[in-house]
Amino acid sequence: MSRTVLVFGAGKSTAYLLKYILEKSAEEKLKLVICDIDFSQVDPKMTSHENCSLVKLDIFNDAERGKAIAEASIVVSMLPPKLHIKIAEDCLKHTKHLVTASYINQDIQKLDADVKKAGLVFMNEIGLDPGIDHMSAMQIIDRIRDTGGKMLLFESFTGGLVAPDSDTNLWNYKFTWNPRNVVVAGQGGAAKFIQEGTYKYIPYQKLFRRTEFLEVKGYGTFEGYANRDSLKYREAYGLQDALTLYRGTMRRVGFSKAWHMFVMLGMTDDSYIIENSKGMSYREFVNLFLPYSPTDSVELKLRHYLKIDQDDIRWGKLLELNLFDASKKIPLENATPAQMLQYILEDSWTLLEHEKDMIVMYHKFGYEIGGEKKQIDANMVVLGENRIYTAMAKTVGLPVAMAALQILNQKIKTPGIQIPIKSEVYDPILVELKSHGIDFNEFEVPYLGYNPDSIAI
Amino acid sequence: MSRTVLVFGAGKSTAYLLKYILEKSAEEKLKLVICDIDFSQVDPKMTSHENCSLVKLDIFNDAERGKAIAEASIVVSMLPPKLHIKIAEDCLKHTKHLVTASYINQDIQKLDADVKKAGLVFMNEIGLDPGIDHMSAMQIIDRIRDTGGKMLLFESFTGGLVAPDSDTNLWNYKFTWNPRNVVVAGQGGAAKFIQEGTYKYIPYQKLFRRTEFLEVKGYGTFEGYANRDSLKYREAYGLQDALTLYRGTMRRVGFSKAWHMFVMLGMTDDSYIIENSKGMSYREFVNLFLPYSPTDSVELKLRHYLKIDQDDIRWGKLLELNLFDASKKIPLENATPAQMLQYILEDSWTLLEHEKDMIVMYHKFGYEIGGEKKQIDANMVVLGENRIYTAMAKTVGLPVAMAALQILNQKIKTPGIQIPIKSEVYDPILVELKSHGIDFNEFEVPYLGYNPDSIAI
Repeated sequence: MSRTVLVFGAGKSTAYLLKYILEKSAEEKLKLVICDIDFSQVDPKMTSHENCSLVKLDIFNDAERGKAIAEASIVVSMLPPKLHIKIAEDCLKHTKHLVTASYINQDIQKLDADVKKAGLVFMNEIGLDPGIDHMSAMQIIDRIRDTGGKMLLFESFTGGLVAPDSDTNLWNYKFTWNPRNVVVAGQGGAAKFIQEGTYKYIPYQKLFRRTEFLEVKGYGTFEGYANRDSLKYREAYGLQDALTLYRGTMRRVGFSKAWHMFVMLGMTDDSYIIENSKGMSYREFVNLFLPYSPTDSVELKLRHYLKIDQDDIRWGKLLELNLFDASKKIPLENATPAQMLQYILEDSWTLLEHEKDMIVMYHKFGYEIGGEKKQIDANMVVLGENRIYTAMAKTVGLPVAMAALQILNQKIKTPGIQIPIKSEVYDPILVELKSHGIDFNEFEVPYLGYNPDSIAI
Repeated sequence: MSRTVLVFGAGKSTAYLLKYILEKSAEEKLKLVICDIDFSQVDPKMTSHENCSLVKLDIFNDAERGKAIAEASIVVSMLPPKLHIKIAEDCLKHTKHLVTASYINQDIQKLDADVKKAGLVFMNEIGLDPGIDHMSAMQIIDRIRDTGGKMLLFESFTGGLVAPDSDTNLWNYKFTWNPRNVVVAGQGGAAKFIQEGTYKYIPYQKLFRRTEFLEVKGYGTFEGYANRDSLKYREAYGLQDALTLYRGTMRRVGFSKAWHMFVMLGMTDDSYIIENSKGMSYREFVNLFLPYSPTDSVELKLRHYLKIDQDDIRWGKLLELNLFDASKKIPLENATPAQMLQYILEDSWTLLEHEKDMIVMYHKFGYEIGGEKKQIDANMVVLGENRIYTAMAKTVGLPVAMAALQILNQKIKTPGIQIPIKSEVYDPILVELKSHGIDFNEFEVPYLGYNPDSIAI
């Protein structure tokens, strides 16, 4: 008897998810049903597969949604996070497992008791970040603990970047995911973390000037800036006693220092509307944030305002974006500065047909064992194949697909609302991800903590 | 027959208001009734006056509040702005005029038609800023227009500062009003204004580095930073065609550049709670915002982080606040950075018993007449007498008191929800304020616009 995997959402990030399920469909007796209102992003090779069927469905139509879920063996939701709750409630009603790559929110968490009572697995945060970060980190943390080690330090960085052979601009950056998230990254409150037992806070206006460097063998140097809440998984990971907890976002070196210019100019602000935004030139946009002068050029005003020397490469980065071009216009009406900046950046930073993305993840684990301080670093690089089969789609979609199959096959069976931090979940999935080239390079380094130069106190 | 002036609120800012009414009470046959739950801030000379009575009353008790209003001839509310609406509704019900020094909000504005129908005057924004700024500016703007001039530029700055003979610290600043407003000033969105026909926006992270200087004869140089919305009164003042509109806050020179350090450190953030705030030393507080180091001092880390040279007076300003003192503790539980900073600042910036405050206002009016461009500058300085009879209480309270009496005597009679921008209101009040030493020094200057160096284009 075949089992039906019902996938809500047929967007960009589902390419590998669908491919994986269909490739396993004969062997595992799977039928794939994809529900969405638009299937234009789906690879025709998938939609024409004998075990794939498409259901055009309005997620807000309770009857249609309920019927599709009632007929499924397991449900996967790749829809925007706020739409998960309706699906989760239906899954509970019809006693179906659920898998998503999204953060657990309060509405979902409230279902926990009922989900457990029904013996269901509602697996969340099992994409890339959150997802692979949880699994790869917890596997090493649990191993350190199992051998008697005591965790002192945990740092984790992830970046969605452009692959080296498609890396053609001064920023070493192109949009490979949601551009809006990149433009407003870091806003909404200070970044909070712990270093050597001390709480630390970085306001937005300094966030991109407080990076640290990370070396990935074969790929060179990256930098990381702090995520808003590094303490989010302190309890879940059992790191209440760790002295250092830091989660960050990875970029190529120099990106953040240059991005800081936009922050200081005020161009990333998404909280107000610019007057007469429609038809404004890139140059006029820049001038909005500079003092008036009847004579001085926008260029010199900006250089002076941000103290950019003649030989500062940040200047080249601004020129590359055509920021001072008076003929290029922004067509957006009633736009915020962030929306206008996004438009300008997309003009330069959009991946071309043949270009590839890259996912990089970097963990640091500091611990004490037998009176000695040690450190393990682990990192992962995944390259995209093309604009559809991206590294992002692979690292988000494969863990979701694998989890769905494992749940279906009762390999993962502990019920409840959960994230993949138990060995029951991460062990089999990490093994399988490895066979798809999603693999961590792990090595011991001297424990440095935050005294990297070993300066005597 | 005597008339009853009912004043809600007996806080710090009411000293001159109450004094004015009581001094006029015999001649004008006034009875003053003060409603509050606490009268400790009121000068005993006032409360013991034969024409003054106190009513201890909970503003939220509808029956008591309604009764007090029903018995009054006119009502003045000096309560926090959000409490005005209940009083305004009662005033409407019992057909009483109302005076406040607060900004009109939407709830109040909605009563306009009913207030007009009832023939009542609800005068708002008749304190200092808003208040004296409206009146003094509109008197000059109307005069320029009456003589055929066309307004090109309007700038207006106000500062609540410390009087020269009480100005004893490197910041040239002490708290003379609500310290919280000073600490969070400029937050919540970019400052917006127009310079020579071009919209300009300054984000918070640059606000205190975009000051301009202002000279006040006999008082030296001040600086002004932009208020959030300089365009607020564009329509009310009839300045739709003006090329430059700028409203700002005045400080002594150097204050803003030094304050910018707090902004960049993240100490003015009021949006999140610091872990373990209670009992934290000033030094630990500073260190929250600096990178961890096992060896370097908080002092050197801060100097390096903010690029403060050896000979930079900003360093002296930080030392003066005891910011690096490890023995001084902050007693606040679950406090935000802004609350903790406020505590530290109040430790240094609280006015002593004998010290005096100072109010400074500066307007610039650029206009064109007969093909010629001209400019009038006007400024006002008011000094406080002591900690009760402050310049702030004087400039806020006197216009309110005067307006109440003028309305009572039917000199101000145009009904409706309004602000003091009509000559019917500002002419008599400005004359009377002058007799109390609240007076503008007005002079012609060359029209410079934003080309102060007259550079050829």
